[in-house]
Amino acid sequence: MSSFEKITQHYQQISHFSHAQAMLGWDAAANMPAGGNHARSGAMAELARHIHQLSTAPQLETWFTDAESESLTDEQQAILRECRRQWQFATIIPEDLVRAKSLAGSTCEHAWRTQRHNNDWQGFEKNWKTVVELSREEAQIRAEANQCSPYDAMLQLYEPGASTAALDTLFGETKQWLPDLINQVIEQQQGESVLTPAGPFPASQQKQLGVEVMKRLRFNFDHGRLDESVHPFCGGVPTDVRITTRYDESDFTQALMGIIHETGHARYEQGLPEKLAGLPAGEARSMGIHESQSLFFEMQLGRHPAFIQSISSLAAEMLESQGNPAFSEDNLQKLYTRVNKGFIRVDADELTYPAHVILRYEIERDLMNGTISHTDVPELWDQKMQSYLGLSTRNNFKDGCMQDIHWTDGSFGYFPSYTLGAMYAAQFMAAMKKTVDVEGALKKGELTPVFEWLKAHIWSKGSLFTTGELVSQATGETLNAVHFKNHLKDRYLNQ
Amino acid sequence: MSSFEKITQHYQQISHFSHAQAMLGWDAAANMPAGGNHARSGAMAELARHIHQLSTAPQLETWFTDAESESLTDEQQAILRECRRQWQFATIIPEDLVRAKSLAGSTCEHAWRTQRHNNDWQGFEKNWKTVVELSREEAQIRAEANQCSPYDAMLQLYEPGASTAALDTLFGETKQWLPDLINQVIEQQQGESVLTPAGPFPASQQKQLGVEVMKRLRFNFDHGRLDESVHPFCGGVPTDVRITTRYDESDFTQALMGIIHETGHARYEQGLPEKLAGLPAGEARSMGIHESQSLFFEMQLGRHPAFIQSISSLAAEMLESQGNPAFSEDNLQKLYTRVNKGFIRVDADELTYPAHVILRYEIERDLMNGTISHTDVPELWDQKMQSYLGLSTRNNFKDGCMQDIHWTDGSFGYFPSYTLGAMYAAQFMAAMKKTVDVEGALKKGELTPVFEWLKAHIWSKGSLFTTGELVSQATGETLNAVHFKNHLKDRYLNQ
Repeated sequence: MSSFEKITQHYQQISHFSHAQAMLGWDAAANMPAGGNHARSGAMAELARHIHQLSTAPQLETWFTDAESESLTDEQQAILRECRRQWQFATIIPEDLVRAKSLAGSTCEHAWRTQRHNNDWQGFEKNWKTVVELSREEAQIRAEANQCSPYDAMLQLYEPGASTAALDTLFGETKQWLPDLINQVIEQQQGESVLTPAGPFPASQQKQLGVEVMKRLRFNFDHGRLDESVHPFCGGVPTDVRITTRYDESDFTQALMGIIHETGHARYEQGLPEKLAGLPAGEARSMGIHESQSLFFEMQLGRHPAFIQSISSLAAEMLESQGNPAFSEDNLQKLYTRVNKGFIRVDADELTYPAHVILRYEIERDLMNGTISHTDVPELWDQKMQSYLGLSTRNNFKDGCMQDIHWTDGSFGYFPSYTLGAMYAAQFMAAMKKTVDVEGALKKGELTPVFEWLKAHIWSKGSLFTTGELVSQATGETLNAVHFKNHLKDRYLNQ
Repeated sequence: MSSFEKITQHYQQISHFSHAQAMLGWDAAANMPAGGNHARSGAMAELARHIHQLSTAPQLETWFTDAESESLTDEQQAILRECRRQWQFATIIPEDLVRAKSLAGSTCEHAWRTQRHNNDWQGFEKNWKTVVELSREEAQIRAEANQCSPYDAMLQLYEPGASTAALDTLFGETKQWLPDLINQVIEQQQGESVLTPAGPFPASQQKQLGVEVMKRLRFNFDHGRLDESVHPFCGGVPTDVRITTRYDESDFTQALMGIIHETGHARYEQGLPEKLAGLPAGEARSMGIHESQSLFFEMQLGRHPAFIQSISSLAAEMLESQGNPAFSEDNLQKLYTRVNKGFIRVDADELTYPAHVILRYEIERDLMNGTISHTDVPELWDQKMQSYLGLSTRNNFKDGCMQDIHWTDGSFGYFPSYTLGAMYAAQFMAAMKKTVDVEGALKKGELTPVFEWLKAHIWSKGSLFTTGELVSQATGETLNAVHFKNHLKDRYLNQ
């Protein structure tokens, strides 16, 4: 057996345990009674240990070296590259540091759940100091190996190929026009009246509506399910994708759009290359590309007037609200494109969302590179919120720098993925429109050509290409913020 | 660390992977879409391989030897004994034979699904020959190690401590009175008129009824769930027990009694000793004892007139059938104790069930001991069916020796568990009645004293004692068929 074959067999083996991990994770969120938690945590920790052990198996280094002198096709080289990338990520950090960060992260996250509620920055800061220190240590080790800045090294964990240089440009440009655009749109929307659909809308009816919309979006129910969980997510494995949502019986609009978002994630997973199943090269390219697919579904398709037209009548019918003016196409369109400046990222609309992300990017970049201290964060947060959204978070930590879970366990480098996703999605749509009549497809409610484009250019590529190559091949240009800007102006500014 | 500690840590580790296996097995039956099967099979096979590898780890033998000279309490000795028992079961069969039997078993089982439907004994016989041969080989190896007969060795896999000698006595006695009793009861029941409740009974209502009955039976929903699957079962882990049922909208009685049955299995699991969680000594004692708990719930409690009285009004209310004479206590009692001679074991009533089991026991015993050939089975089946139930299965293989899945993959030795369970259950009830007013508890609908007895004498003991010790300690006598006979006569023969 060649070293290449030994490597692929080894990663296939890992994928079987990851399958168990993914399904048990989904089950814990969607099914598990509270009393099952203790035993489940034990099983999950054991699986994580075992996967880490396999991912850092000593024989891999020799196999990688040997495989490089084997005669490999381009595809095999890509397969090897992605295995090696995962191996490097797993092996480069000393076990002691992995354990220390994991412990500090779970301690900080656990306490944060109460501290956030109590606006207790002093308490949080004490735990978080350790998380930041250990994350910097991790970033430094990764930076030395990759010969880049500490923050750039952390970015690779979520968005391979991303760099501070590129993000500074993308986000720097966006900062130039975004605050003004937000103000313009808010002013313009002030004169509009919007009706809120009055519930209750039974969860069972909302679920039927969600399933119907998933069918229209060609979610493959032979390879997946829709269930409920407190925090909606897309889990499972490519041939059995488990998406979840949460139903608020007083408001159907959130669960519906949430389902459309998760369906975007799900179709990416369902469209990944089968022949590479179980190999890193067969996985989704990056967090940003993953988010680009959920946002393509939620923002590019889901909030498109022709799409809203098609679901407005469906929603009215399935929620027994025919004739209700709040269900009119025009009203739903207004509801789904309403812009508000708010403190909370997860509640933000399409237009203000990037401001929340850029703020976090700038802070975590400087934090990892060591140019600011963790104690500087609340003041920087307040300054930037004032500057981008005109809101003050002075002494309001819980709605400020303590609002997200990401930093509590040291996931620095993740936040940019959200806005990169929105930018990729807009750029994909612009490219798609060159060959696909998207407007016509949406009006006919026959989206096959749209999905065929996504499958051909994104889904079926897995991680065979670098993120940059994938985007260039799909759109003919490198990632830039122009298409995102055009999309937002087209949608939100009255002509 | 002592060798004893190394051993317990090792088995705890195995239990984490078994947790994953149990939950993925439940998920495959209760949730998984068909398209998820391929990847799931891969994950399940990998988990099974890994568990087998851990269960046969070479260091275990040394640890076991060393642990024997360590100073251990009685409980630690029992823990050690059960680890060693599992280790011996796992290591004694050569890998080649394990693989060959597994392959022959799945080939035979897969083909059987079609062959049974087609009454194709000739086709089945060709595959089954190999399964029988390999099972005999396995039985021979186990027999030599345990210095017993081949069939006795197979029995240990399901019912540790069981023996042909004991079963010949138990079942031999039962054969003396059972056929006559069946005939008497059927004759007596001929004059009765029984109403069949007319549906449809929506699955959602049946589920609510099932949940309510589970609550009355003190199923702990903080440590378990009720879901649906084609073949009802009790799965999961002790702190998160997953039971399933199947709803027939034209007949609520089967799902309801099925739920009561599975709740018996579930409460045994939920009542196992927490301090031994993850260790073989903390698991259920045997298949027969497990079945004794499900049958205690289904037959001893569930078909008791006082219990049927309490659920008849509940069922009428929850299924919106108040005033329907088919829901009267008297009619439901008749429905649930109706005796019929039939071909199919899984459809058999309480009274005829043992005849089906004894027939299988006698055949598989002789098959494993090599005194009959697998080609003799159809004729023996026909003879025994004629003798015990007065039915002929000549040339009717699909309703005869091809009806069960157990033999298709070589699970010889399993069948006696069903009737052992019924006998244990009757003996437990007789013993319980010495100190607990069961009748009164059932009439009051307050079953706490019943469950306390079961928890104290059965559930909390796990596998700390041998099956024989467990039964003697609980009932003051070794297992015998007298209580079962008395129970059946009391219930089925009019005084």
